[in-house]
Amino acid sequence: MDRINALRKRITSVDISKMKRAQERLDALTKPRGSLGKLEEIAKLIVGITGKENPVLEKKIIFTFAADHGVVKEGVSAFPQAVTGQMVYNFLSGGAGINVLARHAGARVVVADLGVASDLKPDKRLIIKKVNYGTKNMSEGQAMTRDEALRSIEAGIEIFEEEFSRGSGIPPEAGKHGVDIVGIGEMGIGNTTAASAITASFTNMPPAQLTGRGTGLSDKELENKIRVIEKALAVNKPDAKDPIDVLAKVGGFEIGGLVGVILAACARKVPVVIDGFISSSAALIAYCLEPKTKEYMIAAHASVENGHIFALNHIGLKPIFDLELRLGEGTGAALAMGIIDASLKIMTEMATFKSAQVSEEAQ
Amino acid sequence: MDRINALRKRITSVDISKMKRAQERLDALTKPRGSLGKLEEIAKLIVGITGKENPVLEKKIIFTFAADHGVVKEGVSAFPQAVTGQMVYNFLSGGAGINVLARHAGARVVVADLGVASDLKPDKRLIIKKVNYGTKNMSEGQAMTRDEALRSIEAGIEIFEEEFSRGSGIPPEAGKHGVDIVGIGEMGIGNTTAASAITASFTNMPPAQLTGRGTGLSDKELENKIRVIEKALAVNKPDAKDPIDVLAKVGGFEIGGLVGVILAACARKVPVVIDGFISSSAALIAYCLEPKTKEYMIAAHASVENGHIFALNHIGLKPIFDLELRLGEGTGAALAMGIIDASLKIMTEMATFKSAQVSEEAQ
Repeated sequence: MDRINALRKRITSVDISKMKRAQERLDALTKPRGSLGKLEEIAKLIVGITGKENPVLEKKIIFTFAADHGVVKEGVSAFPQAVTGQMVYNFLSGGAGINVLARHAGARVVVADLGVASDLKPDKRLIIKKVNYGTKNMSEGQAMTRDEALRSIEAGIEIFEEEFSRGSGIPPEAGKHGVDIVGIGEMGIGNTTAASAITASFTNMPPAQLTGRGTGLSDKELENKIRVIEKALAVNKPDAKDPIDVLAKVGGFEIGGLVGVILAACARKVPVVIDGFISSSAALIAYCLEPKTKEYMIAAHASVENGHIFALNHIGLKPIFDLELRLGEGTGAALAMGIIDASLKIMTEMATFKSAQVSEEAQ
Repeated sequence: MDRINALRKRITSVDISKMKRAQERLDALTKPRGSLGKLEEIAKLIVGITGKENPVLEKKIIFTFAADHGVVKEGVSAFPQAVTGQMVYNFLSGGAGINVLARHAGARVVVADLGVASDLKPDKRLIIKKVNYGTKNMSEGQAMTRDEALRSIEAGIEIFEEEFSRGSGIPPEAGKHGVDIVGIGEMGIGNTTAASAITASFTNMPPAQLTGRGTGLSDKELENKIRVIEKALAVNKPDAKDPIDVLAKVGGFEIGGLVGVILAACARKVPVVIDGFISSSAALIAYCLEPKTKEYMIAAHASVENGHIFALNHIGLKPIFDLELRLGEGTGAALAMGIIDASLKIMTEMATFKSAQVSEEAQ
């Protein structure tokens, strides 16, 4: 916890004065004021986060963390648990949705095993930071120990820091960013159940409203999933004032890992693109640990999963788009990176009214 | 009109059987069925439109057509009329929003003068198909003659066909596409007034509901704009059953040109990405001329302009995203192309459950 607290103290607010100057620059460009809507907001925010007047997002990383969930014993997923590990191999060989969309965005996918239930074949592209072989069944007791929750967050911090120093070949102490922007994604059969329970803990909303069909449950299976979450909350009584307690009782190792990435990225002034519902449950925990993390978050999209919008609302984030996605892995975050890049190009490449000799609007 | 009618006859329905096969392929990929939402819908549609199993959108064009509007005399815009021509130069020198976003999408911008009020400096990158020096003031009589309306559409057809044959170096008769996808955009001070009047004509909705602030009108100026549109409709009585009549009475030359591009692209089985409100008013005219054009249209975004969603609803199109844009020029269409590219990569680059040895969901 000391390490996490030390990191929290390093997270400062974004640079409002630079954001104001960015808006002035945007207003001088050959377009009616504000007519590029969210693109202008995003560009301004990236300036505020990075503190750079002309940020360029060259080094993009999607962190896709995998872990298993003991609660799958309760029949909360349409897919067998073995799929978590199988998908890790798919990530490594480049055939998953996130690989395709990350390539499209010019991003690298960093895959880590935070707690897959089986031992995965060694692969130099796979980071192993296994906290345990899957969580325990949260409907019978807490998913992990408090110590495991802390270790999962610390594992995420370590993974980010390794990439950060590796990214540019410059040691972190030099203060230069080796990572320009990160997206957070995940894979874990059963993890929409964890995300629903986490979101219920922080928002106090009934699980029936926050729980969705995940990878594709029937009506009956959805009813069961809701009952399982209700039971998990009743058995564990997660304390919303103690985000580590929530993570330990109803969370997952990949979710904890992503909390660590968020904290570490914010401390390094690196924008964090939040993917779907599970990523947002990690964002919720990070936000409740340190509210300033919100200023560094960009919500990529509104997921089909019922609970997602409530998680985003609780933090105070608005998604950039709604493409009816519900895949996870970081896919929505990767797509959003294309739009974020576009927003920065608008700010840096467009002509001004003056330079293009275009008349301005009547005041 | 003969030429337009001949083109209409060449527009056939999209290939439903190939779309079904595309969905089967999408369902075999390593993701829960349907979990990539709109991306899957878009990929399937591009297969249906092009008739290609693995479409690749290499040659992308944004057609940005410019023209002036006599109705600006009524004070319907915050910008002076001279800006239309000034922005054409900005398009040619690459400094406008559409240039930046087209480069981002890997698209070429084709700029044409369909009826700017002044003579523009000759430039080999500028296509001149001036129908007239701006339209007449629609609040006093029809904006253009019926002959001019037809000529504006024909000009658009010609511009598309020239690009189509140029695109690949293969003559159009060979049946090979020289253009893989088009976006339509525009520039014309006063043209949200025309778009509002066109949309009111086809939807029978009151101008007060369809009229927005364009480039940034005050409350009082907006009231005036609504009255001007009401007057234009009362004076001209455009006949919704005769789309050419609507174009002639309350349209614009750039809008007519875009109608021509839509018709020509559909006849060549090229997908058409519709930008914002003005582009959608061209789409409305094309749809009312030939309803099958709808099958080739992809609505990029939901604009801030009030009338836009009503125009899209009338055609039956749903926008891909809402980034609160209101710039026009084709900017939203260019952004959408990035997402369309991503959707095709998903279909062609992702591993299947079988190839990746991932277990499928329980049936």
